[in-house]
Amino acid sequence: MTPILISTLSIEQLQISAILTYTDFNKPLGSVMSKDSQAQSAKPLYAKIADELTDMIASGVLAEGDRLPSLRMLSKSHAVSVPTVVEAYRVLEDRGVVTPLNRSGYYVKRREDFFQPPKPVRPIGSPTKIMQKEATQLVMTAAQNPGLLPFGAAVPSPSLFPITRLKSIMSRLLRHKPELLGSYDFAPGSMELRRELARRSLRWGCTIDPEAIVVTNGCVEAISLALRAVTKPGDIVAVETPTYYGFLSLLEVLGLQALEIPCDPVNGLSVDEFTKALRKFDVTACLLCSTVSNPTGATIPVKKKRELAELACRHDFMIIEDATFADLHFNGETLSIKSFDTDGYVILCASATKTTAPGLRLGWVEGGKVSDQISYLKRVSSIGQPQINQLVLAEYMASGGYERHLRQLVRTIRKQLDQHCTAIADSFPSGLTAVPPSGGFLLWLELSSEIDGLELHNRALSFGIGLAPGEMFSANGLFSNYLRVNCGQVYTDEIRTAYARLGSLLTDMM
Amino acid sequence: MTPILISTLSIEQLQISAILTYTDFNKPLGSVMSKDSQAQSAKPLYAKIADELTDMIASGVLAEGDRLPSLRMLSKSHAVSVPTVVEAYRVLEDRGVVTPLNRSGYYVKRREDFFQPPKPVRPIGSPTKIMQKEATQLVMTAAQNPGLLPFGAAVPSPSLFPITRLKSIMSRLLRHKPELLGSYDFAPGSMELRRELARRSLRWGCTIDPEAIVVTNGCVEAISLALRAVTKPGDIVAVETPTYYGFLSLLEVLGLQALEIPCDPVNGLSVDEFTKALRKFDVTACLLCSTVSNPTGATIPVKKKRELAELACRHDFMIIEDATFADLHFNGETLSIKSFDTDGYVILCASATKTTAPGLRLGWVEGGKVSDQISYLKRVSSIGQPQINQLVLAEYMASGGYERHLRQLVRTIRKQLDQHCTAIADSFPSGLTAVPPSGGFLLWLELSSEIDGLELHNRALSFGIGLAPGEMFSANGLFSNYLRVNCGQVYTDEIRTAYARLGSLLTDMM
Repeated sequence: MTPILISTLSIEQLQISAILTYTDFNKPLGSVMSKDSQAQSAKPLYAKIADELTDMIASGVLAEGDRLPSLRMLSKSHAVSVPTVVEAYRVLEDRGVVTPLNRSGYYVKRREDFFQPPKPVRPIGSPTKIMQKEATQLVMTAAQNPGLLPFGAAVPSPSLFPITRLKSIMSRLLRHKPELLGSYDFAPGSMELRRELARRSLRWGCTIDPEAIVVTNGCVEAISLALRAVTKPGDIVAVETPTYYGFLSLLEVLGLQALEIPCDPVNGLSVDEFTKALRKFDVTACLLCSTVSNPTGATIPVKKKRELAELACRHDFMIIEDATFADLHFNGETLSIKSFDTDGYVILCASATKTTAPGLRLGWVEGGKVSDQISYLKRVSSIGQPQINQLVLAEYMASGGYERHLRQLVRTIRKQLDQHCTAIADSFPSGLTAVPPSGGFLLWLELSSEIDGLELHNRALSFGIGLAPGEMFSANGLFSNYLRVNCGQVYTDEIRTAYARLGSLLTDMM
Repeated sequence: MTPILISTLSIEQLQISAILTYTDFNKPLGSVMSKDSQAQSAKPLYAKIADELTDMIASGVLAEGDRLPSLRMLSKSHAVSVPTVVEAYRVLEDRGVVTPLNRSGYYVKRREDFFQPPKPVRPIGSPTKIMQKEATQLVMTAAQNPGLLPFGAAVPSPSLFPITRLKSIMSRLLRHKPELLGSYDFAPGSMELRRELARRSLRWGCTIDPEAIVVTNGCVEAISLALRAVTKPGDIVAVETPTYYGFLSLLEVLGLQALEIPCDPVNGLSVDEFTKALRKFDVTACLLCSTVSNPTGATIPVKKKRELAELACRHDFMIIEDATFADLHFNGETLSIKSFDTDGYVILCASATKTTAPGLRLGWVEGGKVSDQISYLKRVSSIGQPQINQLVLAEYMASGGYERHLRQLVRTIRKQLDQHCTAIADSFPSGLTAVPPSGGFLLWLELSSEIDGLELHNRALSFGIGLAPGEMFSANGLFSNYLRVNCGQVYTDEIRTAYARLGSLLTDMM
């Protein structure tokens, strides 16, 4: 497969090719498209037919919902027995690209059905006291090496940020209001910024009072304050599994227990499983990314978001919703759980600079019924945020630049995601599974079961490649053969080479 | 008294006049100097003589250690009876300006003896669970009103900050390294800044490894992290009494108990009393300002600082030393407890911007034996501080500008302190006591016992004047008739008028 071929595909098509659903008798879809004839010739007939059909689906010749040729027709056209075609269709069904419909034949699955979930992972099902994980420590320390290729981070390339514009706003502020350097700004923070943040929350279906917003030192501090406001040591906090490792570290340092709730890589946290868990455990809070989750890229369907909001009210626990990546949803499905919050049970947290200017380091929180406590906690624990940083962002948002930038960023990262997926398909050995994220730039990969992600991380480190091994994303040591890959970096030869290197390392480890 | 007359006095002389030791039968020293003849004529003879002598002492005619005229000599020169002179000398002794020496007569007290401590305040002597104080809430909320005259804050006028220089450094950084806006900086923080901070700590007698420094969101966050690293809810933390109200709020939100240790307004925390308390209570940490304390301006003598460091080691508790105001000591006595720390029992915290550029919002902590935990806590709780803010400060420090600025600032605030003290002496009714601080710009005033500081705060607020009532500075409701006054503001007519207004309010309340 040549990159040129792939780059002509749309993201949706690439998602199909990038599903990377390998089985022991199949080449990856991407490789099929590369017409690797040597491998093809060694294949049984049914596999060749399956590959051919997959190819047609991937290239759009067979579109979503199309009926596949009948068994008889294909048997005739390919001069093979009907059982061979049956076997080929079974392979396609296993791959998740076609679906049988009653007795009327096989159909190309709709795009959303193509997502091939990793094997379902059942968390242990009991609250877990978090212990600082070796993996997390290692990776966080490694992440501070600026020379490292940041596959393990969760940041886009700095070149994707609107630096020139922000720099010019900041320079002008310095010229006209130098006194900003000399004055304190107290929590809850600059009203100019809080007004813009409230206005932006309309995109998430929220109508938020700027007075209830507290500006924080990034989203992580927002979540830390939210947890401190609603929990005490020993309390049980429900989290997705896999969940962002930073959440687990926060639970750890606050002496909280994590209750891992199973997640679907497409639909996110299982509300049904969570409802069952609520009957068994006294849950104080549920901490999750409802839209474009980290690490899976999953988004909870709107209906389920509403159910979660109702559940919180009925069972009297707080939802801490991290909306940091919500604006990066590819189809603009950004409705939040908070938008269904009628009684203040949802605390909305977000970064305000992660996708714009991480160097300004600003996040925010709307604390629902504990807004005042959160504001007090922030003021008592660190007074407030630098005012000039807040005003730069406020002005940028007020100018409309923020929205334009986000639209452009989403376009760019979708394209990049394609490029990264293609490189992975090209370079990694078979035996991995991935789920195209609903947005953002993170890819959650399941590797062959014999691969230890942490070991891969350690080996990759010596080649200057940073990784986020799956083990970090669970309190119970799950996901040891997973990786979260940062596809936010602009695709370059260096990145291509790095994937090739990772491919070799993986092959060595198998 | 005219400001011109007073402004010719040195700070030490003014300290005498500003001791403001009033009794019910005496006018303030300042007023004596103003030759308020109407009031004078109504006075008994002994009081007039006492005023005259006080005047001579204040103006330096009678110097420290000078012997006062004998009873007989003064009786003759003033044509009054010896008992009248005895009474006059008794008044002077009450005022704390003279001291009898055995049978050899009365002597002008040495300067340090002039400090008239407020009546000793005995804390309750048991650990106290902190409840959020109405006063603290009120004052912190009021402090966010930028239109308020900030007598209740603890900040110098913004015009005293090196804004032009910092602005130019920041503008240049934006021009040459705009990418700083796009990149994360992880705890422990920028090495450029940590190196400068470590170098500066030499002034405090410390040799600190930059690697052990964690840059924080101001000193308050440094202390918050230090407390979180070494305590768990319910633990006992020893504090000075009075202590900075922000410390009490921190103990409150962390569920800690405050053990208030008596303090001398000159020598700070009583190490002897503390030693006694250690026998009685299981103290986890001691949180204090050892040099130029907030609110009293006291500095613990070097010998006692060493004792404290040894005590921590012997009794296995951590000292959290806030050195924020240490650089503002008038005589450069800046040696820290940390400088005597041999086994990592002292956590040194400080602001890096309070006296330079509060708008950059940077503090730091060297965590002794818990440095790693503090660094981890910071990274987990809020990742890090904005890099550009750190680099501005680092460059300013490296250029030597920081030290020059501090020297100038100390000169300026000493002068301002004089001006504020004079205005207070001019405006406030009798019955108050103050202690000249060893440095900084905060003045701790004891008002007449019938005055309620919080009530005064509320009344002053309606005139646009912010105050810090004494009640905020104790967990046990002590100091209700005290005020902490911010003399960091450049003296202007507006400030003179505000003191006159406060004087009227006080008179109304008596």
